[in-house]
Amino acid sequence: MAKRNAFYAQSGGVTAVINATACAVIQTARQYPDLFDKVYAGHNGILGALKEELIDTSLETDRTVAALKHTPGGAFGSCRYKLRDLETSKAEYERLIEVFYAHNIGYFFYNGGGDSQDTAYKVSQMSEKMGYPLTCIGIPKTIDNDLPLTDNCPGFGSVAKYVAISTQEAALDIISMCETSTKVFILEVMGRHAGWIAAAAGLASYQEGDPPHIILFPEIAFNKERFLKRVQEVVQQHGYCVIVASEGTCYEGGRMLHATTEQDAFGHLQLGGVAPILAKMIKHELGYKYHYAVADYLQRSARHIASKTDVEQAYAVGKAAVEFAVAGKNAVMPAIVRQPGTPYQWTIGEAPLSEVANQEKLMPRSFITDDGYHITQEAKAYLEPLIQGEDYPPYYNGMPVYTDLKHTFVAKKLSRLFKV
Amino acid sequence: MAKRNAFYAQSGGVTAVINATACAVIQTARQYPDLFDKVYAGHNGILGALKEELIDTSLETDRTVAALKHTPGGAFGSCRYKLRDLETSKAEYERLIEVFYAHNIGYFFYNGGGDSQDTAYKVSQMSEKMGYPLTCIGIPKTIDNDLPLTDNCPGFGSVAKYVAISTQEAALDIISMCETSTKVFILEVMGRHAGWIAAAAGLASYQEGDPPHIILFPEIAFNKERFLKRVQEVVQQHGYCVIVASEGTCYEGGRMLHATTEQDAFGHLQLGGVAPILAKMIKHELGYKYHYAVADYLQRSARHIASKTDVEQAYAVGKAAVEFAVAGKNAVMPAIVRQPGTPYQWTIGEAPLSEVANQEKLMPRSFITDDGYHITQEAKAYLEPLIQGEDYPPYYNGMPVYTDLKHTFVAKKLSRLFKV
Repeated sequence: MAKRNAFYAQSGGVTAVINATACAVIQTARQYPDLFDKVYAGHNGILGALKEELIDTSLETDRTVAALKHTPGGAFGSCRYKLRDLETSKAEYERLIEVFYAHNIGYFFYNGGGDSQDTAYKVSQMSEKMGYPLTCIGIPKTIDNDLPLTDNCPGFGSVAKYVAISTQEAALDIISMCETSTKVFILEVMGRHAGWIAAAAGLASYQEGDPPHIILFPEIAFNKERFLKRVQEVVQQHGYCVIVASEGTCYEGGRMLHATTEQDAFGHLQLGGVAPILAKMIKHELGYKYHYAVADYLQRSARHIASKTDVEQAYAVGKAAVEFAVAGKNAVMPAIVRQPGTPYQWTIGEAPLSEVANQEKLMPRSFITDDGYHITQEAKAYLEPLIQGEDYPPYYNGMPVYTDLKHTFVAKKLSRLFKV
Repeated sequence: MAKRNAFYAQSGGVTAVINATACAVIQTARQYPDLFDKVYAGHNGILGALKEELIDTSLETDRTVAALKHTPGGAFGSCRYKLRDLETSKAEYERLIEVFYAHNIGYFFYNGGGDSQDTAYKVSQMSEKMGYPLTCIGIPKTIDNDLPLTDNCPGFGSVAKYVAISTQEAALDIISMCETSTKVFILEVMGRHAGWIAAAAGLASYQEGDPPHIILFPEIAFNKERFLKRVQEVVQQHGYCVIVASEGTCYEGGRMLHATTEQDAFGHLQLGGVAPILAKMIKHELGYKYHYAVADYLQRSARHIASKTDVEQAYAVGKAAVEFAVAGKNAVMPAIVRQPGTPYQWTIGEAPLSEVANQEKLMPRSFITDDGYHITQEAKAYLEPLIQGEDYPPYYNGMPVYTDLKHTFVAKKLSRLFKV
């Protein structure tokens, strides 16, 4: 079998561990030199393929590549750029194949969330249609944990750990001060439609009454009166109240507590602002002094406190993706499979891209308590294993040492520029 | 010399390492059983003395006390409650002496910022005036790093490390995505009048052009036009712009970018909201997609990434405070003294409370670059040693193990309740 090049791209919002996946793809491909010539990474994700901006990872040293495992962000650049159906985005799919052909790319590894798995699937269909032999493997990644057919998504465990620890630590601060100062603290976390990240804050509660006292999930309609009543009860009982709110918290009917009309490239609303809205509501109606934090990108880039389990899984899906390609598989995604029983054990399974694409896995109702404000034991049993272990990056001079790549571009071969 | 009890209280906003100081006070006092009978901790700081709510730390095991060293928040409760001058707050000073007398308290250790050092000084004056023998030792603590006569303040090094790392990590996220998504990221950090915390973000810049690109200090008047011009230049040059803004950023003349009329017990304005204001300004005037994070309490409770140097200094000032008392000193505060030269070395010195009280140490102008948007090499040389080393807490089941005290109250001896 002739050697061909591989193309790897990172897509959508990055995570603390997506580079661990990149590390695994490159390291594993290097183990099959008869099969893979070079691994080219897309500069800024799929845009790198469309614009023929390919980074030659073969020029990065083993040491640099190894250090990707502990470096947050997307080392090759990612993007929010959605390819639509094969007809609407026909020119783009054809361009991809054109670039792949020009650079003898026989393997397409696409590392992203639901939209990206959809793209990977469509690329596999297009390559077949055009008679261009291409192995397409999707690799799961999303802090939102909303992909189907995988028990969890690489990237989620680390944000879950960050949110649980931050909630616990901030709560210790507030309880210290609540007699004369802040009574209500709100932590706003990511999660547009699925409350997985907010749910993780529930791991900071060891027993009834522990903070966080109220978790707001996108899955549960927000009721202002009920919410304020609960806040008041909690403050009266404990002296303070810690709230963790998903950015996607919405009223019955789906109207977000705070939604702007600005949309990103995937057509998602740009959110942010639930915490100040809740804070003002509480101040106005109940008069409590509040503080709020908006974790925003800090939560998904916090490699310094990544979950070891998450790092291992992020690596494992990257490794499996290459091994799937070696085994001749196509249009599949490595999935994390939880083994029954305790202690927690996981293996790598396989999900067809056709079934992963464009589905969102919401929190099961059984993961949320009846009152809608906390997580159940069932949720804890699911979440707890995902935050196990610490995997500290190396430090120098007080700061983490994150790797920096050469980013050497492959010489362009196509005369045509592609307008994206 | 007859054995007497000691009183220890935590005051004002807590830090990731104030309990390391508490740990040192208790452990060191236990080493002088002939001098100190018991260490009583004020429940919610000085309020605990006024209300005669004293926690008997002698009932906490050595192991629990040792674990204070890695537990954030204020283990005995803190408060924002300011005693004013000796005349205005006469009843409160007298009440303190009354409670101290009732419980045979001969040592007063007050762990806080500038306001608290002032209180400790006044208590020493009052005890002298009333003829009650009391050793008063102030112990420095403040994330704001604004105490005079000490090279730095315990609590600051850890928030500095958190802010520097968070800035670095978030920047790696934004640079990955800026081609198609967020162009401007703003991190709002604490610091009402002094820009020390914002300055620490500058440690994430290793070379010219590295993020953060713009730091906003309370010491430098904010000029909207100049700021927006700079943001635009940075985005044009680098493709993205990372901004770290002090909550106390203000216009020429002192008007805060965002100030509510709500004040805390010390008469300070309750702040928060600089990041969204800057974000909207940028969106409106330049059209860039933005994200912002508000670190709020997360930054000062983040014990999981505390600076080892900070933990050691927080412990050292607690230990020195007790040793000062043993040595017969009074109305002093242990101070951190930086030794000349490199590598960084520090010792514990001694500052008279009369000179520490109510002074705010702002950033020297020489620590801020001429354009007002970054820190100088001189600032880096000052800041860098303070974030050295990691001091991870122990973990169990994926979460830090923070200590929980028994909080056993000493039986009240006074019939009179004191209204605070």
